[in-house]
Amino acid sequence: MARSARKYVYFFGNGKADGSGKMKDLLGGKGAGLANMTNLKIPVPAGFTITTEACNSYFENRKKYPPGMWEQVLVNLKKVETSMGMKFGDAKNPLLVSVRSGSKFSMPGMMDTILNLGLNDTTLKALADKAGDRFAFDTYRRLITMFGSTAMGINRQLFEKALERMKEERGVRLDTDLTTDDLRKLVGTFKGIYEKETGKGFPADPLQQLKLAINAVFSSWFSDRAVTYRKLNNIAHDLGTACNVQAMVFGNMGENSGTGVGFTRDPSTGQKKFFAEYLTNAQGEDVVAGIRTPLHIDELKKAQPAVYRELETIYRKLETHYKDMLDIEFTVQAGRLYMLQTRVGKRTAAASLKIAIDMVQEKLIDKKTAVMRIDPVQLEWLMHPSFDPKAKVQVIGKGLPASPGAAVGKVVFLAEDAEAWAARGEKVVLVRTETSPEDIGGMHAAQGILTARGGMTSHAAVVARGMGKCCVAGCTALHIDEGTKVMTLGSRVLKEGDFITLNGTSGEVILGQVPLVPADLSGDFHLILKWADEIRELGVRANADTPADARMAIKFGAEGIGLVRTEHMFFEGDRVQAVREMILADDTEGRKKALAKILPMQREDFIGIFEVMNGLPVTIRLLDPPLHEFLPKTREELEDIARDLGVPFQKLQARNKMLHEFNPMLGHRGCRLGITYPEIFEMQVQAIMEAACHVVKRKVKAIPEIMIPLIADVNELRVMREMTVRIAEEVQKRTKVRVRYEVGTMIEIARAALLAHEIAPQADFYSFGTNDLTQTTYGLSRDDAGRFLPYYVEKGIFEHDPFITIDQKGVGMLMRMAIDSSRKIKKGMKMGICGEQVDPQSVEFCYEIGLTYVSGSPFRLPVARLAAAQATLKRKMKKGMSKASV
Amino acid sequence: MARSARKYVYFFGNGKADGSGKMKDLLGGKGAGLANMTNLKIPVPAGFTITTEACNSYFENRKKYPPGMWEQVLVNLKKVETSMGMKFGDAKNPLLVSVRSGSKFSMPGMMDTILNLGLNDTTLKALADKAGDRFAFDTYRRLITMFGSTAMGINRQLFEKALERMKEERGVRLDTDLTTDDLRKLVGTFKGIYEKETGKGFPADPLQQLKLAINAVFSSWFSDRAVTYRKLNNIAHDLGTACNVQAMVFGNMGENSGTGVGFTRDPSTGQKKFFAEYLTNAQGEDVVAGIRTPLHIDELKKAQPAVYRELETIYRKLETHYKDMLDIEFTVQAGRLYMLQTRVGKRTAAASLKIAIDMVQEKLIDKKTAVMRIDPVQLEWLMHPSFDPKAKVQVIGKGLPASPGAAVGKVVFLAEDAEAWAARGEKVVLVRTETSPEDIGGMHAAQGILTARGGMTSHAAVVARGMGKCCVAGCTALHIDEGTKVMTLGSRVLKEGDFITLNGTSGEVILGQVPLVPADLSGDFHLILKWADEIRELGVRANADTPADARMAIKFGAEGIGLVRTEHMFFEGDRVQAVREMILADDTEGRKKALAKILPMQREDFIGIFEVMNGLPVTIRLLDPPLHEFLPKTREELEDIARDLGVPFQKLQARNKMLHEFNPMLGHRGCRLGITYPEIFEMQVQAIMEAACHVVKRKVKAIPEIMIPLIADVNELRVMREMTVRIAEEVQKRTKVRVRYEVGTMIEIARAALLAHEIAPQADFYSFGTNDLTQTTYGLSRDDAGRFLPYYVEKGIFEHDPFITIDQKGVGMLMRMAIDSSRKIKKGMKMGICGEQVDPQSVEFCYEIGLTYVSGSPFRLPVARLAAAQATLKRKMKKGMSKASV
Repeated sequence: MARSARKYVYFFGNGKADGSGKMKDLLGGKGAGLANMTNLKIPVPAGFTITTEACNSYFENRKKYPPGMWEQVLVNLKKVETSMGMKFGDAKNPLLVSVRSGSKFSMPGMMDTILNLGLNDTTLKALADKAGDRFAFDTYRRLITMFGSTAMGINRQLFEKALERMKEERGVRLDTDLTTDDLRKLVGTFKGIYEKETGKGFPADPLQQLKLAINAVFSSWFSDRAVTYRKLNNIAHDLGTACNVQAMVFGNMGENSGTGVGFTRDPSTGQKKFFAEYLTNAQGEDVVAGIRTPLHIDELKKAQPAVYRELETIYRKLETHYKDMLDIEFTVQAGRLYMLQTRVGKRTAAASLKIAIDMVQEKLIDKKTAVMRIDPVQLEWLMHPSFDPKAKVQVIGKGLPASPGAAVGKVVFLAEDAEAWAARGEKVVLVRTETSPEDIGGMHAAQGILTARGGMTSHAAVVARGMGKCCVAGCTALHIDEGTKVMTLGSRVLKEGDFITLNGTSGEVILGQVPLVPADLSGDFHLILKWADEIRELGVRANADTPADARMAIKFGAEGIGLVRTEHMFFEGDRVQAVREMILADDTEGRKKALAKILPMQREDFIGIFEVMNGLPVTIRLLDPPLHEFLPKTREELEDIARDLGVPFQKLQARNKMLHEFNPMLGHRGCRLGITYPEIFEMQVQAIMEAACHVVKRKVKAIPEIMIPLIADVNELRVMREMTVRIAEEVQKRTKVRVRYEVGTMIEIARAALLAHEIAPQADFYSFGTNDLTQTTYGLSRDDAGRFLPYYVEKGIFEHDPFITIDQKGVGMLMRMAIDSSRKIKKGMKMGICGEQVDPQSVEFCYEIGLTYVSGSPFRLPVARLAAAQATLKRKMKKGMSKASV
Repeated sequence: MARSARKYVYFFGNGKADGSGKMKDLLGGKGAGLANMTNLKIPVPAGFTITTEACNSYFENRKKYPPGMWEQVLVNLKKVETSMGMKFGDAKNPLLVSVRSGSKFSMPGMMDTILNLGLNDTTLKALADKAGDRFAFDTYRRLITMFGSTAMGINRQLFEKALERMKEERGVRLDTDLTTDDLRKLVGTFKGIYEKETGKGFPADPLQQLKLAINAVFSSWFSDRAVTYRKLNNIAHDLGTACNVQAMVFGNMGENSGTGVGFTRDPSTGQKKFFAEYLTNAQGEDVVAGIRTPLHIDELKKAQPAVYRELETIYRKLETHYKDMLDIEFTVQAGRLYMLQTRVGKRTAAASLKIAIDMVQEKLIDKKTAVMRIDPVQLEWLMHPSFDPKAKVQVIGKGLPASPGAAVGKVVFLAEDAEAWAARGEKVVLVRTETSPEDIGGMHAAQGILTARGGMTSHAAVVARGMGKCCVAGCTALHIDEGTKVMTLGSRVLKEGDFITLNGTSGEVILGQVPLVPADLSGDFHLILKWADEIRELGVRANADTPADARMAIKFGAEGIGLVRTEHMFFEGDRVQAVREMILADDTEGRKKALAKILPMQREDFIGIFEVMNGLPVTIRLLDPPLHEFLPKTREELEDIARDLGVPFQKLQARNKMLHEFNPMLGHRGCRLGITYPEIFEMQVQAIMEAACHVVKRKVKAIPEIMIPLIADVNELRVMREMTVRIAEEVQKRTKVRVRYEVGTMIEIARAALLAHEIAPQADFYSFGTNDLTQTTYGLSRDDAGRFLPYYVEKGIFEHDPFITIDQKGVGMLMRMAIDSSRKIKKGMKMGICGEQVDPQSVEFCYEIGLTYVSGSPFRLPVARLAAAQATLKRKMKKGMSKASV
């Protein structure tokens, strides 16, 4: 062994480890945990970790160990022998070892463990002498199975079948019912299988066994399932895996032996209570195999109080050290406790909250750490009823997880039916090919919405998220026959009134009624958000269209309204009739007459919102959609309207045809309407300003921010700004009230982002409309993307659905360009985002690029507040680190 | 006068001028021309020019002359007096002067001239002594009219009406029938009008007259019509106007006096023949007023041969000096010739060509100059029949000038009718609400196409331009009733068979038949393009979908095909049936079966094109439109197809509904189809490569460039490239032929342009699809823009229609980013453009940003070739200038 060789092997044992808990990169998660426990003087069977560097070098060097590695293995094996007082391959007192992989990130099921290495016909005897024949042969056959299948690639079924045959022959049901003789024979059979499959005998040389096991661990890094797992989880392929070689301890050496697993606190509720299970005289794999049912840890307390006390001391020590709830594994061998593994434990959203808050109160962690501990996505789950995790479900289809939560109800196909059934107390799920504004009432009445068409930002999805209601959209396999009131999904045919369950978090459509656990927004929920608010620097606003929405927004912590969509107001009740009158008017005068009817209604809307938001800014977007959206689509509906309005059907039809657009998304809408029909926007500005002046007189502080949509060129904004200022000044003069108002624009068209430096002088603020910006940047209609976007995401062609998470590379580049070029002209210019992407990643990105606030539907604000706080903390940590490294 | 004052006044006279012909900035066009002629020893009445600087200073200084200017005027006025041997305001030998504006660029009608300044009751007598009482009073009343209306803003009608009244009183028809006494009285009346309107008497002081006239000239620079004219013609407002003060000469002083205008060559044909008219004993304004009909210049030759010879010498001298055809004005005063103006003459497209080429042969100019002289837009007019300029037309509507040229024919409303009527020898104009691929046959058969809907790149527009056929699109006032076969346009109702005329260059729809002059592509046309080709550095390709198109492309000078749209092939004849079979197939196998029917047809298409383009590259775009475009829209048509294909109507209807898209432009098309239905693109690549291998065997050189449409992310291109290479290699292996092929992509989505540096490694070439890139960058559907885009352009909200001329600021920024970032990775990477914008401005831009080639419809190639040559020359001139300035 060359003295100058790199250190590839890290020993742990006897209360001292070469490595430490921080060396996850080099030793993997498991190796770092073992080193850490050892250093904490916690009893851990001695062993050593071969580094991830060695693994990478192995692959770079055509599957040869790097120079010196094997020699270091041998040296450290000796140390293990010394520590355990046993010798590897020794005929009298043989050391057995386990070999396990362990990479930086947990990759469950990447590779099976190989236990009991070092056993051969010679050492078998010594083991039998110590622990009995039955134990020895049972251990041996397990080794051959694991080694043969894992290290040599023999089909595991061959061993399993031989075992089954033996049990049949003996007429027994359980492995444990086999006799020592049976097991001895089985070992012979297994050796035969091994030889037949590999062409060689089972290696008697323990060092040979060890080498092959190490090779198998290394090779498992590039196994198909490991590569796939890493792709799916965005883990780099060049991390490599470490290999942990550790002395075996046995929990199956009698009644004072046993094995256990546990959590330091309750992973379901977060209660501060040791939550563990124990199995006497058993090995870990028996628990996993479900052969025996583990007992409550109190059984250990009763049977071996000293061991239990030691375990208690240890888990408390570990919690204090890791400052988190832990998942632990341990073995008791003949009355002696060994810790085998520790790691941060998985938990439910509720437990996550409780543990974090408890630990702050216990002064284990500070508030910042608590805030960093909560997964914002998990937080969202808390806001919706969830499935009983014990329920068995039958999934019959899948769509897009358009709005999270769960919904159970009877299938109805028409919005009217949803309202009628709900009115008589039935729970219903509204199933539609797609929804339209006329369905709003039915959507409100339903528990959840399922649509066959439309993407994450289709009408159904947007409205459902706004309502905080579960929605599965774009379930393309779904066919609906409204006539016969029947839906077909896969091979299932459901009729009106049949029960169905939706999982809006996964997009699954489930047959029948799945029991639900109601949402519980505890004090913990609000406390953690309070802490988050103390930390975050990014503002959080809500998209809200009504006073009710606005109240919800305040409830969930909005600091203003980032988007009032005035068109939603146009659809309500009798208003749509006045809107249609306006559309059908032949000239400006006719339009103005119809608009005069809408004006007082719009004014009332704004008065209501201003009153709720007293003192907080309200960004109001002027009319955005093309006019034809306010006309119905079928001939029958058109005929109805013609009758209601008293206009000839032909005229209505002609106007409808004239308004038709091939690509409404790219059509005559937003400021293009405002420029060609200025009277519409003028009415809206008048309504906003009259409302503001009205409430100001009543001591309510109104802060309107008037927002012009769909700007592609500064000239459009210039014209619209002039109009807005003119009307606003007129109203103030008339009412003799001054109101602080601003005029800004959406940045939702690529060209506006590119030329933002030209637009900035005309805008008091920007709001990035990332839905439309994503649509135009990608040339992708969100309503039509359902046919290929899911496939794209599944195949990794797109990293994310850009309508869920902002595309940082493309759309984000435009946002950065717009922000930087505009702030060069207007330092500190106010800029927000009002698209639908308020997932944690997008929120962090918005903070990184310097936005003033994010705005989303009220129900998504908690996530945004938490994510914004985490983004601030992450930046501080980075700064701290870069300072530290200076 | 301060000695150090700036020089504001430039004298010309006595064969020497202070200024020169190059000083257009300072002296304006007219002033520079007068200085130039003076320096050339050409007889010009003496005068001086007050500079544009003085004008600008006048405005900067609250309408005060800059210090020293007026003094310089007085000094130079003295020089004029000396030169002409007369004195301004002198009672015996009075000098009269004219005052005219003259800016750098000709601004016709910006301001009227004031003639005869210097006349008052005193000088009047001297004039009467010299030229008779009648002449003197006539001159005086003209002065009062011009001065009063132009300098003092009196309504000219007041003078005109007084004149009319006098003629009525006297019972005469013509001004010239009035007696001296009548005119004397009229002068009195006019002075009365002047005093009543201005509150002051007509200024008797000649210097006061001069000062007010100069002020009027300066002020005219910011008159409403001048400002509007400059806006419309992109002329800067800070250029200012010069003011020319010049001694009057009189062509109405007897039979040996006269006035004339002319062109040094024929402005209609370009023939090298003096083309002028002369009027004896008359002033220029008499010619303009149309009171007397001018005679052929030969009359002058007969009457005053010496003067004629001098004129001949002068115009030849001028042509040699200016090296261009000139427009001249002259006056003969008592047998003495004076030149009053010279400038480059306006001419027809044909004349422009002939003159440029003749002058090269005369060695007056070189080929480069000739190429620079031709306006590419004018060149295009030569390619289409044009209106007889003498015809009177009745315009009844206006649409977009979608495809240039003129068309006369009978109105038909259905494509079938167009074909049937044309087959029996009728000329028809196809009038449709919009066209679709099914109308192609009818469009071919028609003289021109008129649509009510769609923009510059609507189906009708694109196809018509491709055919070189006249089209007026988006005539929104047009209503068609296909049922009764009647169209309404404005107040006109036309029925099938009525005659209509379209002007595709102006967008006008004209009632009845306007006589046309056929297109004449003379040798001159091809010669100038040959010269352009020798100069230009930018490649020129054609968009062509068939062998016939390809032949047309070669005829018009294409160096390759920049875009074969394979979808057009899918529409033809029986193919669409196979395509529909494919669309209706339930699975990949079914689709493959249908595709197998299309394969041999596609292969034949490509064989045909490769054979025509032998040795030239052919860029073939794989299927671009969404599949639903291949299904018809009406229930009746769907029923027909169901019958033809033998599928249940319900199934067809369901599939049609499923394929429906809200925004097809942003839908499931291009590479998104290729990725989700790989078999379609595979078939196309196979057809291309089999065709290429086939022709190579027959010694035809095929250079296929396979182009993937609608890339938004490099991963899409990676998948498509792998597929293409796999199929291409397969075909080559099978056929044992090697073909040089390339795989590239369209850059037509904003995101692809933004992330081009990621895409470049996967692409052998780019083609900018500026139609779609414009649509996505602006968020603007070209098919729907007709409702507001014309308004936007008219109001100056958008500088241009970005579908006609590339938006250099926004779309151009994306193009520059893509080009620069990609060429950093792939130096000299081949990049072209295949959008519809091949107007001269866009061609120059493409050259400036470094594209390899432009590609447009064959009929637009001559324009592109010429514009490309001019772009090269402009750059060289700029370089030359910047070198010279070093």
